[in-house]
Amino acid sequence: MLPPLRIGIAGLGTVGAAVIRLLDRQADVLTQRTARQIDVTGVSARDALKDRSVDLSALEWFDDPVELAKSGEIDLFVELIGGADGAALASIEAALAAGKSCVTANKALLAKHGMRLAGIAEGKGVALSFEASVAGGIPIVKTLREGLAGNSIERVYGILNGTCNYILSRMETEGLSFAQCLSEAQKFGYAEADPTFDIGGFDTAHKLAILTSLAFGTLIDTGSIAIEGIESISLADIEAAAELGYRIKLLGVAVRTPDGIEQRVHPTMVSKTSAIAQVMGVTNAVTIDADAVHELTLVGPGAGGEATASAIVADIADIARGVRSKPFGVPVATLTEGKHAPMQLHLGGYYVRLSVFDRPGAAAAIATRFAERDISLESIVQRRRPGAGSETPGAVPVILITYATHEETIRDALDAVVADGFLAARPQFIRIERE
Amino acid sequence: MLPPLRIGIAGLGTVGAAVIRLLDRQADVLTQRTARQIDVTGVSARDALKDRSVDLSALEWFDDPVELAKSGEIDLFVELIGGADGAALASIEAALAAGKSCVTANKALLAKHGMRLAGIAEGKGVALSFEASVAGGIPIVKTLREGLAGNSIERVYGILNGTCNYILSRMETEGLSFAQCLSEAQKFGYAEADPTFDIGGFDTAHKLAILTSLAFGTLIDTGSIAIEGIESISLADIEAAAELGYRIKLLGVAVRTPDGIEQRVHPTMVSKTSAIAQVMGVTNAVTIDADAVHELTLVGPGAGGEATASAIVADIADIARGVRSKPFGVPVATLTEGKHAPMQLHLGGYYVRLSVFDRPGAAAAIATRFAERDISLESIVQRRRPGAGSETPGAVPVILITYATHEETIRDALDAVVADGFLAARPQFIRIERE
Repeated sequence: MLPPLRIGIAGLGTVGAAVIRLLDRQADVLTQRTARQIDVTGVSARDALKDRSVDLSALEWFDDPVELAKSGEIDLFVELIGGADGAALASIEAALAAGKSCVTANKALLAKHGMRLAGIAEGKGVALSFEASVAGGIPIVKTLREGLAGNSIERVYGILNGTCNYILSRMETEGLSFAQCLSEAQKFGYAEADPTFDIGGFDTAHKLAILTSLAFGTLIDTGSIAIEGIESISLADIEAAAELGYRIKLLGVAVRTPDGIEQRVHPTMVSKTSAIAQVMGVTNAVTIDADAVHELTLVGPGAGGEATASAIVADIADIARGVRSKPFGVPVATLTEGKHAPMQLHLGGYYVRLSVFDRPGAAAAIATRFAERDISLESIVQRRRPGAGSETPGAVPVILITYATHEETIRDALDAVVADGFLAARPQFIRIERE
Repeated sequence: MLPPLRIGIAGLGTVGAAVIRLLDRQADVLTQRTARQIDVTGVSARDALKDRSVDLSALEWFDDPVELAKSGEIDLFVELIGGADGAALASIEAALAAGKSCVTANKALLAKHGMRLAGIAEGKGVALSFEASVAGGIPIVKTLREGLAGNSIERVYGILNGTCNYILSRMETEGLSFAQCLSEAQKFGYAEADPTFDIGGFDTAHKLAILTSLAFGTLIDTGSIAIEGIESISLADIEAAAELGYRIKLLGVAVRTPDGIEQRVHPTMVSKTSAIAQVMGVTNAVTIDADAVHELTLVGPGAGGEATASAIVADIADIARGVRSKPFGVPVATLTEGKHAPMQLHLGGYYVRLSVFDRPGAAAAIATRFAERDISLESIVQRRRPGAGSETPGAVPVILITYATHEETIRDALDAVVADGFLAARPQFIRIERE
């Protein structure tokens, strides 16, 4: 039997405390699975006196996480400090430099420094594992890195932010406004006081950047991601979507196109009958389209102390068993630049909602602007009565669904419609994602 | 760089040919992922002359798979012969005895000999991998064995047989009879000429036996599985389920109960809004309830050459990287007997469909039989007009949904109802599975 694996944990918030509890609760079966004992021996956090409902008395306390990372008393360093730089980065660098495997849940840090850190880990022959950084308890990193090792991946997309999915789900099921649902999410602890990072799509983008690299063997390129949040989604959109057989989800999508790899985060119309449309509330989901497996969907908790700890403990167990996967599946040196497909070349269907002054000829003029650009319409719905209180007096909603069109074409058509002066408000458009 | 990993493949049907094609197509990325070349060097099949649309000219041909398994020219043996005994068993035994890792898709063999073979593999320090044996392309074995290593699992259940799910899906969406859908499935190659193994639930039971062992750390115990097939499901059941907010799926369920581990395969009512209810056609799905991750669902292709090859190649890649997981996650010697919970103690809701002679007092008598046994009814639907042609003249359908009841109690109540002489046909009852 191997000697015990000694673990240092930096950051003792909800997740850190859950990791300690889970390692303790599952000690026996983890020893059976890994053929060695797993011991937390050192911890570090900002406040030594805070009550965390876990017994830390037998553990060595480090005020400085970097000292913990370098300590000769640990074999594996778990970084749960958070933040793309600062103490999180310094301590992981120190641990890797000292030849220790690292486990982290820190997507912001990986999106920014993941390539360099993976290179260091590979050079030292140690692991850098981050299952918990994307989609919480869903083993999507392992699935992409190992489970689909023989596949060429065409597309990976998913619901990667529970806050946004909670808000969109509540808007639909309760008929509430975006603002009402956001404030409710804040009340229940599903959204931060400053929710920008979640609802603006930035959290999803960090996770997508990691998935893209794993899926396509490309260098992480967060800067190339087109990002739109859910702030613009109104109840009128949710209701129109439902009527047309769609549901609105904030998706992160990475897809191989003839123009390169397209990475985008935006509210998306998905068919109500699709697997991803069934995912409601704070739950996350990821779908992978690949040549051999065709379509695989994983659905599970995207956040929460226990679910995140589940992913971290799985990483720890792999390392305990001696597995040293390359952090991004293949050596960092073989990751490619990956041609970036610009959004104006995006090809897909669009949902367009226009608030049109109720004048003769308006609908015909709009249809003409689309026809001039060869945009085929799958459906057009003009309602005589204004929609749920969100329309300007004298204006009526017109909803269009287009067949596959280039983004630059649809934007150009909408510019022309705006210039015609028939619209009472800025046009809304939402991309449609096909299964 | 390690020397090439030399592979021998026995059995060159759809899956075997797909494995050869996939290894060839993904050769470069697999070398990057595993840091070594993966070469198929030897093959064995019954008919050397059959056209398989793969080029075998560079490979050594073995008429006898056991000779291939023992050959000094291979490092890893892939068994795709099929069958619980015979050549499949003999060749895996020979490969393990010779210290070679094995990959198999053979659930029947694992359900029967898995424990003994895993013991031999552990003794030799080699891998015995079988991702493809359960749910085809879905990486459920890896997820249970590694991805949820830190979880204590409460329940694992799923749609594990595409043939049954195809038939049940078509019955619902097209309003066709069981017999019509079965013959259609046979026409499209989704069902065998003798479909008993699939529609009788036996294929699902083999897969469930493997999942149960992985989930609960118990010895495989196929004999304890309560098995019912889908032959008894009528369109009347499908329609009544839909009306009451349910959908019927053939599920394999393994659950920890106060009475032990309950393993069962049967047609099941699942809520129409559940993730598993959305899984239509030949697609498979597995849901895991566990203490840390709470609920995780994987949805993907359960069969097909390419999808199965995806799982086999992932196993091969793990072995190429030097990973030697214990076949069942923990050493076979630590697997426990696992107390078997008998079906009469099963506690759950039931759907009951009775064909009742339309006489005064019939409904009251039936309700009394349930009330006498403290069975609470969630709903009772009696239709005046007979259902879709399936009823005896003079009989009307009565549908009952019970709250949680023990199986022995519901059976006893139904026996009493039958004895009362109000029924025109044998009562139908279907267990309800809650999310």
